[in-house]
Amino acid sequence: MNTERTKPVENLHHVVIVGGGFAGIQCAKSLKNANTRITLIDQRNHHLFQPLLYQVATTILPTSEIAWPLRRLFKGRDDVTTLLAKVDDVDPVAKQVRLTGGRDISYDTLVLATGARHSYFGNDSWAAHAPGLKTIEDATNIRRRILLAFERAELTNDPDLRRAYLTFAVIGAGPTGVELVGIIAELAQRVLPKEFRHIDTRQARVLLVEAGPKVLPSFPGTLSEYAQKSLVKLGVEIKLGNPVTQCSGDGIQLDGADIGCKTIIWAAGVQASPASEWIGSTSDRAGRAVVTDTLTAQQYPDIFLVGDTASVTDRAGKPVPGIAPAAKQMGKYAARVIRARCANKAPPAPFRYLHAGSLATIGRRSAVADFGKLRFKGSFAWWVWGLAHIYFLIGTRSRFAVAWSWLWSFFTGHNSARLITGDEKPKV
Amino acid sequence: MNTERTKPVENLHHVVIVGGGFAGIQCAKSLKNANTRITLIDQRNHHLFQPLLYQVATTILPTSEIAWPLRRLFKGRDDVTTLLAKVDDVDPVAKQVRLTGGRDISYDTLVLATGARHSYFGNDSWAAHAPGLKTIEDATNIRRRILLAFERAELTNDPDLRRAYLTFAVIGAGPTGVELVGIIAELAQRVLPKEFRHIDTRQARVLLVEAGPKVLPSFPGTLSEYAQKSLVKLGVEIKLGNPVTQCSGDGIQLDGADIGCKTIIWAAGVQASPASEWIGSTSDRAGRAVVTDTLTAQQYPDIFLVGDTASVTDRAGKPVPGIAPAAKQMGKYAARVIRARCANKAPPAPFRYLHAGSLATIGRRSAVADFGKLRFKGSFAWWVWGLAHIYFLIGTRSRFAVAWSWLWSFFTGHNSARLITGDEKPKV
Repeated sequence: MNTERTKPVENLHHVVIVGGGFAGIQCAKSLKNANTRITLIDQRNHHLFQPLLYQVATTILPTSEIAWPLRRLFKGRDDVTTLLAKVDDVDPVAKQVRLTGGRDISYDTLVLATGARHSYFGNDSWAAHAPGLKTIEDATNIRRRILLAFERAELTNDPDLRRAYLTFAVIGAGPTGVELVGIIAELAQRVLPKEFRHIDTRQARVLLVEAGPKVLPSFPGTLSEYAQKSLVKLGVEIKLGNPVTQCSGDGIQLDGADIGCKTIIWAAGVQASPASEWIGSTSDRAGRAVVTDTLTAQQYPDIFLVGDTASVTDRAGKPVPGIAPAAKQMGKYAARVIRARCANKAPPAPFRYLHAGSLATIGRRSAVADFGKLRFKGSFAWWVWGLAHIYFLIGTRSRFAVAWSWLWSFFTGHNSARLITGDEKPKV
Repeated sequence: MNTERTKPVENLHHVVIVGGGFAGIQCAKSLKNANTRITLIDQRNHHLFQPLLYQVATTILPTSEIAWPLRRLFKGRDDVTTLLAKVDDVDPVAKQVRLTGGRDISYDTLVLATGARHSYFGNDSWAAHAPGLKTIEDATNIRRRILLAFERAELTNDPDLRRAYLTFAVIGAGPTGVELVGIIAELAQRVLPKEFRHIDTRQARVLLVEAGPKVLPSFPGTLSEYAQKSLVKLGVEIKLGNPVTQCSGDGIQLDGADIGCKTIIWAAGVQASPASEWIGSTSDRAGRAVVTDTLTAQQYPDIFLVGDTASVTDRAGKPVPGIAPAAKQMGKYAARVIRARCANKAPPAPFRYLHAGSLATIGRRSAVADFGKLRFKGSFAWWVWGLAHIYFLIGTRSRFAVAWSWLWSFFTGHNSARLITGDEKPKV
């Protein structure tokens, strides 16, 4: 092999970044020209724009429009080496990460940006019946389940089974849950009715189940109320104040009653990746590592923890939310600290989270937006939301492609990505 | 359920079409206003534009741009009921098709358009190592294998393993094989080099293996020679005149020699679906049912066999090729016969295949086109090919989306659909 190409110089300060999500790639980006060499390790070959994942799960966007090969992002950065590999453990004393298969990679500085998965609060057997939404495969799995439910309802002659296939339950009324039910209701009410001959898809039940007292718990009351009313108008049934006590292949149990339901989606809780276990750090209830005010591990100043795997609070003592802008701010901050250290300069002031705002869409043409003093709702908020997301999408082509898919969907009422893929074969 | 909607009238002549490929949907389309009711059954929810499947396998197009929900195609046709179901058998005496799960559907006329799968000529164990290309999952599987091979080559320190990961073999030099190697060679030579740090992707070996004496066997000699020269220029190694004698996880065996190779793609042969077995028909070597000159089963005039599952010859006695235009002509012809019968009119003249032409692309900017007297090659042929395929794509949005993806890829040299998805986890 030709080895004279773009290999980074070996004796530079070596930063290993584990995880190519928002925090990890922001850190790598912010280390441009920092005179370091970077190894970016991820078990997937793509960065995923998670805020739009629910649109893949609900047939609005195709998979390729929200995922971008990590290599491609750093094509022009000779200082960045990308490895598709899984990290199993960290040896913080020997300063090595261990890959599956046994290979060790040494680091001078380690950035752990390994994110979170959904959590079933101890009921792990629910996972098979109530998939969550974190990866491309999660999204195509949910898309397959939703579309197959309508197909099987059309095919069966058993009225109870048909009713169960036409009942959809989303557990958790945070932004993801609200966004999912909005689009599912629109699918049933507006997109699909003319395509079926034996069932009336408009009679589908779309349930949003939330243990707490309101939808969008982190939003101001007026916006929560607006979201709730808008969802009801779209045909969503909202069940507040009781946690789900059972999820099975037949349905859910709620407040002592069984609801027959063949499609359940979990949007209720997350659990951090095991990064804090790798380094023996103390962690919070969701498994996030407790970090110093420079985002480093408490015992190891050369290990940073950023994004969803770090437990960080804002000035008011409130936990920093698990959203893309927070992850990016942490990644950027870690890069600043590394840069200062490499240049033997004074460290920057402690990390401080700046909350830009909260957004959630309701169906295909409405949204709520909370920017502190400024609050929007309805179609104006939807346009704000759409422009913000298109702006933050990585890669010129994705921006155009997503904008095009949305405008197409908006003006025609069609959804463009209604593929049932995967191994599960139709049966009744 | 509301039953007053769009259910077809029960006492109309009932045409059951099995298979939503080119032949099946053309038949349903051509039966518009024929005063029949149609049930279209497919085990997938989408029509697949198979001629472009190789572009999904090679990262040029995302999956959603070449597949279209069957229901959507017939949304406005109240006479068409679409069922997502698998047919297991046909009872030609009781005039019923049996679905998986045991449900029977009665027909007055049956159209079997169930297509073909790839065939390993008796070496079925090769399937695991040398996947073929017929479904969306086949394409994403091959895409994953190609992209993972580069990733694993980057990750390993073993030079032999690295060489095997950087060797790609496509078996069969018909249009699909030629199209696949062209794009794989371009990926290695032009798209990927700047993204890897430890390997030089330009040193990848891309092999095209053909048992016969030339590439594109069905094309005129001048175009075959042109294709061969163009492929060599793109960096493809062409091995003619010997069949592959072994495919395994380590590579292929050819002319007595082992070639280490981690990615093998099968483009060498097809086998018809079991439709002819269902009805006890005689069939040819590839399992295609022998049909009458009106495309009906020899014993059952109310059963049509169309597309890749029918053995049909043209006027010169040559087998009709397994390509989309041939399938469409058969589907259309079957509809004409059904229409004539329902109207008690004289049957149309026997089916006659009209060969419009043959096209194959070579890499991203060249092609060969054979329209009998008119023959084109090079970039002009590529534009002819591109416009023809965009024209025939179903659905306005897909046309725009595909055109956009191609122009993007053409002008920027980027490939837009480089996702590794699916369950296989990285390992070295």
